Amino acid sequence: MKNFDINEDPHRRFNPLINEWVLVSPHRAKRPWQGQNETISTEELPKYDPTCYLCPGNVRANGMHNPPYESSFVFENDFAAMKQDEIIFEEDIKHTFFKAKPEQGISRVVCFSPRHDLTLPEMDLEGIETIIKTWQKEYTDLGNIKYINHVQIFENKGSVMGCSNPHPHGQIWAQSSLPTQVEKTQNSLKSYYDRNKKTLLEDYVQAELKAGERIVIENDHFVALVPFWAIWPYETMIVSKRAVNKITNFTAEESTAFAKILKQLTTKYDNLFNTSFPYSSGIHQSPTDGLDHPEWHFHMHFYPPLLRSATVKKFMVGYEMLGESQRDITPEKSAEILRQQSEVHYKSLVK
Amino acid sequence: MKNFDINEDPHRRFNPLINEWVLVSPHRAKRPWQGQNETISTEELPKYDPTCYLCPGNVRANGMHNPPYESSFVFENDFAAMKQDEIIFEEDIKHTFFKAKPEQGISRVVCFSPRHDLTLPEMDLEGIETIIKTWQKEYTDLGNIKYINHVQIFENKGSVMGCSNPHPHGQIWAQSSLPTQVEKTQNSLKSYYDRNKKTLLEDYVQAELKAGERIVIENDHFVALVPFWAIWPYETMIVSKRAVNKITNFTAEESTAFAKILKQLTTKYDNLFNTSFPYSSGIHQSPTDGLDHPEWHFHMHFYPPLLRSATVKKFMVGYEMLGESQRDITPEKSAEILRQQSEVHYKSLVK
Ligand SMILES: O=P(O)(O)O[C@H]1O[C@H](CO)[C@@H](O)[C@H](O)[C@H]1O
Ligand SMILES: O=P(O)(O)O[C@H]1O[C@H](CO)[C@@H](O)[C@H](O)[C@H]1O
Repeated sequence: MKNFDINEDPHRRFNPLINEWVLVSPHRAKRPWQGQNETISTEELPKYDPTCYLCPGNVRANGMHNPPYESSFVFENDFAAMKQDEIIFEEDIKHTFFKAKPEQGISRVVCFSPRHDLTLPEMDLEGIETIIKTWQKEYTDLGNIKYINHVQIFENKGSVMGCSNPHPHGQIWAQSSLPTQVEKTQNSLKSYYDRNKKTLLEDYVQAELKAGERIVIENDHFVALVPFWAIWPYETMIVSKRAVNKITNFTAEESTAFAKILKQLTTKYDNLFNTSFPYSSGIHQSPTDGLDHPEWHFHMHFYPPLLRSATVKKFMVGYEMLGESQRDITPEKSAEILRQQSEVHYKSLVK
Repeated sequence: MKNFDINEDPHRRFNPLINEWVLVSPHRAKRPWQGQNETISTEELPKYDPTCYLCPGNVRANGMHNPPYESSFVFENDFAAMKQDEIIFEEDIKHTFFKAKPEQGISRVVCFSPRHDLTLPEMDLEGIETIIKTWQKEYTDLGNIKYINHVQIFENKGSVMGCSNPHPHGQIWAQSSLPTQVEKTQNSLKSYYDRNKKTLLEDYVQAELKAGERIVIENDHFVALVPFWAIWPYETMIVSKRAVNKITNFTAEESTAFAKILKQLTTKYDNLFNTSFPYSSGIHQSPTDGLDHPEWHFHMHFYPPLLRSATVKKFMVGYEMLGESQRDITPEKSAEILRQQSEVHYKSLVK
């Protein structure tokens, strides 16, 4: 019998945003790896690729030409997961097992810049601020459409995250329903707000700043941290210090501070394994259903798969799919490692 | 405005086992793929590999020798995610945000047979029945340990599913808590049982047999089907027809019928893309907490990632992680394609 040591002993941690547990196995980081290695491309990309369907002026799958765009560029996804058609539907409530509902939505692609070779950490602050402005505009425009109640802004970065074109870009899926993960988060935020008259994340950020050990970057308006309940080895979350519930409510200063922390965090990520660090990232913020949502608090999740090197990722498979998410390195250790990374991009040192 | 056509229009379906929705985009199956291709090994494996740490007689990472085993073989995982140590722990209830609890558990590896080259579909029925007996024995032995309340039997098949050794094997993680996914399932099963005095899956299987279109294989005691709410392109579930709540309650006839449907289903999987079909599979059944659990109903999930070919998988990334799971081909279409596959393994034809 020994006393619980969170840095050494297997344990579960609770995620109050979605009300789920995660299994943490600190001692397991040492196990050898004989499994699959990811292939990474070390090929230098050209500034412009004539065969890329996202580069300015080029032809897309549907035959349309991209304009000769000079900053960010948004277009409707040619293979959208949802459609804008209005569908007539009568719910058959007798169906306990075969419950289905049509879903209306719009998918857009956001090219970050004309440059085929410039990822987020390699862009200058002005370029990143342009992307933030684009996200604000899209959130407003899409959110204003009557049937759109949720706007999901996200990025899949790297082929290991299913990204099919290296030209830096993100996506936006806007739709009538609240997606599953967002609904769970909203339920947690709402019940906390109702009880405390403060947002859950406002109090959480304060608790984390006090604890210190999971903070990666802090500036006047934002904190980048490894959540206490993080699932992915180097998962992080950027949270606003102020309880601002959507990106369109940022002050000018907040926009600049957000651009800065985005650049710093993604630079640290790239420096970790000297590679263009793959991840899926995305913003969780107020639904666009016309209600107030004082319980919402802007945050951006980063879910990166790499575990030990540029080629060895964490697999969320058998036990994780059937049981629950499991991690091998503690969030505190990951935060420490990320804190140690330089904020100067490794590529700029090589040149 | 048009009438809802579930075979054509984007929609959401509801999963009553875990109370979550999934987004279905039938029209999207046609989009071209320019992203990552998985590497597949077409190398013929030897019957015995002197460098494999799972083959009979060989040395494992911890220096121990495997016995010269002749059927299935079970050992404790050398890099277990949980430990058996009893840990002293006083819960600090003041922690809203930093909630953690030690977790006790045991991880075991189940080598399916001495043969390094023989996957489940290639084994004979007798060999598969031996695995089922092993699962029964492990479920009993582990379940009888006082602090073990849940026994998760699963397999990660193929390197794309994080499997680090091609020698056919599964795993068992047994632990004190109910893992997240199991707890969700139990809540749904329990509330259905309390209302209907029948298990949810008993009624679901009947409804599916009546509908017919999602059935892949049926025998006297089991059904293999693509759930109405399946997430993965060729996801399936094997369900017992009888409301049997754990594998140790199978009759002899049921064990044989289960071995048969396992072989048939995994053979169809391999034949689909003429490849050793990767998946994570696992059994959900009654917890081992000593209670009765009449609400539980034996079922085995198969979560295979491949979408279009042996090398193109479905990526559950950005939208799926931040929003909700999304699929491009309807469960009805997948079931039809699986039904069409032969029950004779493609490799046995080549020889
Ligand atoms: O135990 P293994 O086979 O080495 O590891 C594999 O299965 C485990 C259980 O699903 C996962 O946690 C690991 O990420 C995966 O690589
Ligand atoms: O739309 P893309 O980039 O072609 O596709 C990628 O992102 C989507 C949204 O996360 C996923 O559904 C796809 O599986 C993935 O390959």
